[in-house]
Amino acid sequence: MPTTQTTLTGHSIIAGESVTGTGGTVNGFDPATNEVLEPAYSLIDAAQLATATAAAEEAFDSFNSLDPETHAAFLDKIADNIEAVGAELVERAMAETGLPAARLNGERGRTTGQLRLFASVVRQGDHRGVRIDPAQPDRQPMPRADIRQRKVPLGPVAVFGASNFPLAFSTAGGDTASALAAGCPVVFKAHNAHPGTSEIVGHAIAKAVRDSGLHPGVFSLIYGPGASIGQALVSDPAIKAVGFTGSRSGGTALVATAAARPDPIPVYAEMSSINPVFFFDGALKGDLDALASAYVGSVTGSSGQLCTAPGLVFVPAGETGDAFAAAVTRAMAPAAGQTMLTRGIADSLTAGVDSLGQQDGVELVARGQDGATENAPAPAVFGTDVRTFLTNNVLHEEIFGAASLMVRYTSTDDLLAAAKRLEGQLTATLHMTHEDQATVAPLLPVLERKVGRILANGWPTGVEVGHAMVHGGPFPATSDTRTTSVGTLAIERFLRPVAYQNIPDALLPAPLQQSNPWQLNRRIDGTMEGAGE
Amino acid sequence: MPTTQTTLTGHSIIAGESVTGTGGTVNGFDPATNEVLEPAYSLIDAAQLATATAAAEEAFDSFNSLDPETHAAFLDKIADNIEAVGAELVERAMAETGLPAARLNGERGRTTGQLRLFASVVRQGDHRGVRIDPAQPDRQPMPRADIRQRKVPLGPVAVFGASNFPLAFSTAGGDTASALAAGCPVVFKAHNAHPGTSEIVGHAIAKAVRDSGLHPGVFSLIYGPGASIGQALVSDPAIKAVGFTGSRSGGTALVATAAARPDPIPVYAEMSSINPVFFFDGALKGDLDALASAYVGSVTGSSGQLCTAPGLVFVPAGETGDAFAAAVTRAMAPAAGQTMLTRGIADSLTAGVDSLGQQDGVELVARGQDGATENAPAPAVFGTDVRTFLTNNVLHEEIFGAASLMVRYTSTDDLLAAAKRLEGQLTATLHMTHEDQATVAPLLPVLERKVGRILANGWPTGVEVGHAMVHGGPFPATSDTRTTSVGTLAIERFLRPVAYQNIPDALLPAPLQQSNPWQLNRRIDGTMEGAGE
Repeated sequence: MPTTQTTLTGHSIIAGESVTGTGGTVNGFDPATNEVLEPAYSLIDAAQLATATAAAEEAFDSFNSLDPETHAAFLDKIADNIEAVGAELVERAMAETGLPAARLNGERGRTTGQLRLFASVVRQGDHRGVRIDPAQPDRQPMPRADIRQRKVPLGPVAVFGASNFPLAFSTAGGDTASALAAGCPVVFKAHNAHPGTSEIVGHAIAKAVRDSGLHPGVFSLIYGPGASIGQALVSDPAIKAVGFTGSRSGGTALVATAAARPDPIPVYAEMSSINPVFFFDGALKGDLDALASAYVGSVTGSSGQLCTAPGLVFVPAGETGDAFAAAVTRAMAPAAGQTMLTRGIADSLTAGVDSLGQQDGVELVARGQDGATENAPAPAVFGTDVRTFLTNNVLHEEIFGAASLMVRYTSTDDLLAAAKRLEGQLTATLHMTHEDQATVAPLLPVLERKVGRILANGWPTGVEVGHAMVHGGPFPATSDTRTTSVGTLAIERFLRPVAYQNIPDALLPAPLQQSNPWQLNRRIDGTMEGAGE
Repeated sequence: MPTTQTTLTGHSIIAGESVTGTGGTVNGFDPATNEVLEPAYSLIDAAQLATATAAAEEAFDSFNSLDPETHAAFLDKIADNIEAVGAELVERAMAETGLPAARLNGERGRTTGQLRLFASVVRQGDHRGVRIDPAQPDRQPMPRADIRQRKVPLGPVAVFGASNFPLAFSTAGGDTASALAAGCPVVFKAHNAHPGTSEIVGHAIAKAVRDSGLHPGVFSLIYGPGASIGQALVSDPAIKAVGFTGSRSGGTALVATAAARPDPIPVYAEMSSINPVFFFDGALKGDLDALASAYVGSVTGSSGQLCTAPGLVFVPAGETGDAFAAAVTRAMAPAAGQTMLTRGIADSLTAGVDSLGQQDGVELVARGQDGATENAPAPAVFGTDVRTFLTNNVLHEEIFGAASLMVRYTSTDDLLAAAKRLEGQLTATLHMTHEDQATVAPLLPVLERKVGRILANGWPTGVEVGHAMVHGGPFPATSDTRTTSVGTLAIERFLRPVAYQNIPDALLPAPLQQSNPWQLNRRIDGTMEGAGE
C-alpha cells in the first residue's frame, strides 16, 4: 500500500475544516529527551467547540440511517487510511510518548483490527437489536398491536483521548470506533500529551468521512485547554454520551458534569484498577523463575502504564511463597525503568512508590534499575500481609506505572476476606493447577462481583479485542459496570431501544420493514430468527 | 383454583419473617370515602432495614446461580399465588386506590402474565448473553486465549412501589419481576397509599420463595417513613440497582442519592411524560365524534393517572381542527371525574388545571363533571397555539390526572418546531392516513430522539407487555434512556457482562461450560448459534 505523508498543521479539524484555535497553544513533549516538539497546537475556545458539536448534531440523521455496507465500508476506510500513513505515525507516537516501536506497531494493528471487527458487526447487524411482536388481531380479551423494536444511536458522542494508548484508546480508538459503529457522530478531544499522533489519525478519519461522502460533522478532532474544554464538551446540549479513559479524578469529574445537565447523559469512564493476581499452591510447584519473570514482564511492560497492569499479587506465606518472592527479586534486579509518558506521570510514580514503601507493615521485595532517561524511574515490588492490606486504604489505590504489591496470605479465609475488601477492578487473575480447583471455587463468586474479567494462568495485560471480551467492571474500575470499553459489546453503550407500534411499513426504518431489506436476524415473539428462515 | 385468604398483619415481611416496625405507623386510606383503612402498618427503622438488605446479600449467590427451570418455576409460582388470593386482592386494592374493579382485574392479569412471560425468558436463556471466542493456539503473531462472556445479575435490587399501579408496578410488578428474573434478590418498599394490597402480594411472593426452597432473603417487603427510608435503602452498600416509578422530584432525588454513594449504582426511574399526540389532516376526515370520544377515553381512563396518558395533542388550525375541538367538547361534557388515588393527587390535579387555565394564550376547550366523591375533580381539555406552547415552560409540565392540552398548528414547520422543543417522553402518537405519510416522514427522526415508543392510530395508554415493547425514553421520561421498564428487555437493566479467560471447564458457570448443559443459544466468534447446532 502506498504511504501518505501528513504535514502537521497544529490545528483542530472541525467537520473537515482546519480550524486555528484562539485559546493559546500547547506542544507535544518528548519524555525521553525532555524536548519540546513542533508544531505548537492551537487550542479552541467555547465558540469554536460549539461549531463542532453543532456539526455533529447536523450530521446525526444522515449518519445514523446509513445502509450497513456504506457504514461498514467507512470504518474499513479509516483502518486503511491509518495504515496508509506508514512509519510516520509510529515515529511521531514514539517521540510523544516514549513508548517503544514494537508496542506502538502492535497498538496500531489493534486499532485497525478493531475498526474492521466493528465493521463486520455493522454488516452483520445483530447489534440493531430487532424484535418484532406481530399483531394478533383476534386475541382475547384485547387484540394485540404490531410492535417492533430496534436500537437507535444515542446522538453525538464526546470521546476523550487516553494518555497511555495514543492509538488504541485515542483518536480512532475503541470509544471512537464503537460510537461510529453505533451510528453516533464523534467529537474527539485530543490528549495534549500526544497532539501530533492525534492529528495524523484525525486526518485519516476525516479523509474517510470525505471519501465516503458522509456529512463532515460525523467527526471532529479538537485541541483545547484540558479540563475546561472537557467540561464544556460534556455540558454541550448536542452531546448525548461520553467515552473517557483516564484517572479516577478526571472520570468522576466528567460523571458529575454529565449528571448536572438538564438532561443527564451516560458517561463511560474507565478509570482505576489494581488487577489482583492470586497464586495458589499448585501453581507454585512449577518453574518459579519463569513465573516470576512473567510477573515482572507484566508489571514493567509499557512502563506499567496499562489499565490492566497487575498492581497486586497474593502469594502464600511460607517456604514456597518465599521462594517465589526470591525469584521475583532476582527477575526484577536487572529490569530497567522505561521512559514514561510524561514527566508528570514519572514524578507521580516516584511519589507513589515512596509513599507505598513508607506504609507500616510494607517492605521492599524487589527493585529494578533507573532507566536511561530522566523520566524512567526504577520498577518496584513491595510486600505485605493480608492483615495490613485489609486495614490500610493506601494499599488499595492504583499507582500508575511499574509498581506492584505482593500480599502474603495464610489461608483461604485470608483470600476471601481480601477479595471482599477489594474495590471494583477490570480483572482478576488466578494462577492455579487442577489441584487448586477446590480452593479457587469459593473465590469465584466473590470475584464475579468485583471484576469484569477473570482469567487463569496468564497475565491481565494484553487485552484481546473480540466479541467475548469485557474490559469493564464495578466502580471505580469504570463508571458503568454494565458495559465494556473493549470488544464488540462496546457498541451497545451508544444505543437505546425505540418501539414502533402499528407504524405503516413505508414509514418504518429499514431494519423493521416487513421485507427485511437488510437481511437481519430478528427476534420474533421472543425467538431469534435468521434472515434466511 | 382454590383461593387463599390473607389476614393482614400490618407488618413488614423481612426475609420471610413478619417484622413489627418500631418507627410509627401509617394507614391505608379510601379516597372514595375519605375513610381510614385498618390495620395500621408499622414502619421500620434503619436497623430493621439493614436486616432486609443483609438477607438479600446473603441470598444473592444461591439465587443467581439457580438452574433455569427452578428459577422460572419460582416466577410462575408467584403468579399462581397471586391468582390464588382471589377476590380479596382486587377488593382491597379498590378500597385503597379508588380504581374500578375492571381496571384492577386487568392489572392483575397483566401482573401475572408478566411474571409468566419473564419465566419463559428465564427458561429460554438468551438474556444470559453468552458469547464464546474459542482459543486459537496457532494464531500469529500471538495465540488467542479462550474467552467466554455471560451476563451476571448486578446484586440485590431496591424496588419502590408506584401509587398508580398497585399491582403491575408495585410489589410483584415489572421492576420486581425483571429483577427476580435477572437473578437479583429484591427489597421492595411498599407505597404507603396501598399498604394492604402490597402485603397481600408480598405474602404471595414470600410463599413462592418458601415453596421453591430458596433463601428467604430473595424477597423482603418493607413499610417505612416515605423519603427517609427510601434514601437509606438506596444508600445501603448491599443494594446494587434501583427501580422506581413515580414523580420527577422523587426520581431525581433517588438518582442523586445513588450517584453520591462511594460506589454509584444505576437507578431506573420512570418519572414524567406528557405523551404528545399528533393529528394529521387525513385522520380528521374520518368520524370525528369517534376520534374525540377515544381521546376523551384515553385522557380520563383510570382518572388520567397513567404514565402514558395523552397530556398533549396537536390539531390543525382551521375548520377541520375546529370541528374536532367541538367534538371533544361534546364528548367531554358528560364525562365525570373518577376518584383519584389519594386526596393529595386530587388536590394537585385541581391546582394544575387551575394554573393551566390561567396561562396567557390558554383557554378551556372542554370540561367534564365533578365526580361523585370528594376526590374526583372534573376532567378538562385546554387549548393553545404552537407559538404559546413554544414559549411557556408551564405547558410542558406533566399534570398528573385527567387533563390535556390541545395545541393548534398551522404548518409542518410548526410541528417540527414543537417536536424539537419537547422534553423526553415515553410515547408519541400519530393519527394519520396514507395521504399523511409525506408529512409524517420528516417528523419521525425528531420523535425518535425524544421518545421510547412511536405509535400510529391508537392511544398510548394500554402498554402491551411483550418482547418488543419499550416503556422508556429520554430524560425526564426516565433516568436512563437506554432501558425499558416494561417488556422482557427490562431484565437486562439488572445484568452486567463478565468475561472468563482460560478458566478450566470445571470452574466455569453452567452457561459457559463446553457441554452447554443448559442448552443455551450462544454467540460463537460473533455468530449466534442454537444449542441444537
